[in-house]
Amino acid sequence: MKLKEFARQLGLSPTTVSRALSGYPEVSEKTRKRVAEEAVRLGYRPNINAVRLVTGRAGAIGVVMGRTGEFHFAEYMSGMAERLDGEDIDILVSPTADRDSTDEVSLYSRLATSGRVDAVIVHSPKPNDERIALLHELGFPFLVHGRSETDVPHAWLDIDNETAIRRATSHLIDLGHRRIAMINGRHGRTFSLHRDKGYRDALQERGIAFDPRLLVHDHFTDELGFRYARAFLEQAPRPTAFVAGSMMTALGVYRAVRSRGLVVGKDISVIAHDDVFPYLTAENMVPSLSATRSSMRAAGARSADLVLQLLGGRAAEEIQELWPVELILRESTGPAPAEAQS
Amino acid sequence: MKLKEFARQLGLSPTTVSRALSGYPEVSEKTRKRVAEEAVRLGYRPNINAVRLVTGRAGAIGVVMGRTGEFHFAEYMSGMAERLDGEDIDILVSPTADRDSTDEVSLYSRLATSGRVDAVIVHSPKPNDERIALLHELGFPFLVHGRSETDVPHAWLDIDNETAIRRATSHLIDLGHRRIAMINGRHGRTFSLHRDKGYRDALQERGIAFDPRLLVHDHFTDELGFRYARAFLEQAPRPTAFVAGSMMTALGVYRAVRSRGLVVGKDISVIAHDDVFPYLTAENMVPSLSATRSSMRAAGARSADLVLQLLGGRAAEEIQELWPVELILRESTGPAPAEAQS
Repeated sequence: MKLKEFARQLGLSPTTVSRALSGYPEVSEKTRKRVAEEAVRLGYRPNINAVRLVTGRAGAIGVVMGRTGEFHFAEYMSGMAERLDGEDIDILVSPTADRDSTDEVSLYSRLATSGRVDAVIVHSPKPNDERIALLHELGFPFLVHGRSETDVPHAWLDIDNETAIRRATSHLIDLGHRRIAMINGRHGRTFSLHRDKGYRDALQERGIAFDPRLLVHDHFTDELGFRYARAFLEQAPRPTAFVAGSMMTALGVYRAVRSRGLVVGKDISVIAHDDVFPYLTAENMVPSLSATRSSMRAAGARSADLVLQLLGGRAAEEIQELWPVELILRESTGPAPAEAQS
Repeated sequence: MKLKEFARQLGLSPTTVSRALSGYPEVSEKTRKRVAEEAVRLGYRPNINAVRLVTGRAGAIGVVMGRTGEFHFAEYMSGMAERLDGEDIDILVSPTADRDSTDEVSLYSRLATSGRVDAVIVHSPKPNDERIALLHELGFPFLVHGRSETDVPHAWLDIDNETAIRRATSHLIDLGHRRIAMINGRHGRTFSLHRDKGYRDALQERGIAFDPRLLVHDHFTDELGFRYARAFLEQAPRPTAFVAGSMMTALGVYRAVRSRGLVVGKDISVIAHDDVFPYLTAENMVPSLSATRSSMRAAGARSADLVLQLLGGRAAEEIQELWPVELILRESTGPAPAEAQS
């Protein structure tokens, strides 16, 4: 039986029933008793996780949002929202100015001690992330979206960035490319480090020297994708292939290639990482974009799920999910131009 | 004096001080008394809006997030976060499946009665929006992002969609275009209706008959932009100009035009509405995109500000802000091809 149906049979609102079962003081003792008795009599069993969250708890999962308007963030939250719909659990977003990490750590501390959330999600972790150490110390439930290298036991969900980028780079090498530029994410974040490693390992496996002039780290925007790709294309010899960190970056790379009178998929090959945004699709780009693919929305939904498990009593160290990443080849990748082949 | 400094002088954590001033039962009566006395003695005056939010209140502003992964939503929230940073006020996001409006209205009802938010923001309103009627009836503070036509007094912030699209369409007519297609937002939302009106009025002013085959309503994605533009371009005679509802739509339109062997800015003119996303910029598109422009992030920041004013006691009916929209001409618009001119 669903909450709605149970509430209807009692002639009460779902909110009153939910509050009565959670022992809220606004509901009279008499009503609370009646609801509890009827729940037993009618066999109504509320969702255990939801109750655990609601009972003396906040009924919300906390996330921290920086100023750098992350399009990934919206997609991840949509996934969380999808999973939490009907669970009576909300998402509490705490604003941060992203000024420095001290601010950010104290914000997590405030969140964890506010009584307003039951768990928090840590995004874009660093290898040795202070937030993880803090939350562990506070004994506060949390899930890391991404990975860290800390010894502190913690729950995490990540995609296999290293293998994804190693495969992408290897594939470009198979096609004869030797000068492969990479536009990676922000410095110091674990996902960027993992991607760096995949890229460098692929080069090394094939005896290609790593050239630091072909690797940059920054935010994922079309403008930065454009600017870096333009700069790379001015090098002599120029790169014949790009690994782009995001769909937005790829848009900029496409434009930069075109603006030099070159053709994507013929003169210049491009592989990007695709988080599967509903509003911007790799298969519809012209030429269609080869991509390492993993749904950010699915990660958000699964994250919400894992947080519920965590709150349901599952041990944090048991929750460690590494998702494989697909490599999907389309028209933006092709053999290196003959003159560039060694 | 800032909260941090005041707390330091008392040798207490900012959280304890904040809670003490808000009368939380977790803080002992003795501490509460001491904090109150020291606040008077040291002249500490917490931010009035923040206190009003915190005192017996939730310290959060509620928003409802649908499943349709809105990139606009992230940008708007970033703006809110920017304004709320340092205010000790969070954003509570309630998930909704967007299944039907009854669900959505009951979600707002739940939010308003939950005690977890002090105000809510209503997005993408309809002309006669049930959510507005409900929140007014509940006497719960709310701000509408967009506009409604209801008689219920309420606070709102909107951009002038009608004038923006009228000017964009008029400009295309000035350039000699007669068949102008518009890819507008979802049916039934006020902003879409306003844009429809601006489009139709511009045509009428110049004696051009409205052709319903040149107008569609849907979500803003590059795929839909591509598909609709392809279909429009198959008409005979085909449109020579497009008004696109969003940057994502414009990406699809550009691709559709290119895929037909046509050139944007020469064969086909395009104007899009630009919400000023940091990761996708109109001036960097090739050719650079003419656009009606208004920052979604600025709207988010101002919305948070207006909610604080509302909670500070300002009358809802006094808060009515209509933002003008710029029309920025770049390379994607040009004279209609000679054979298409009447």
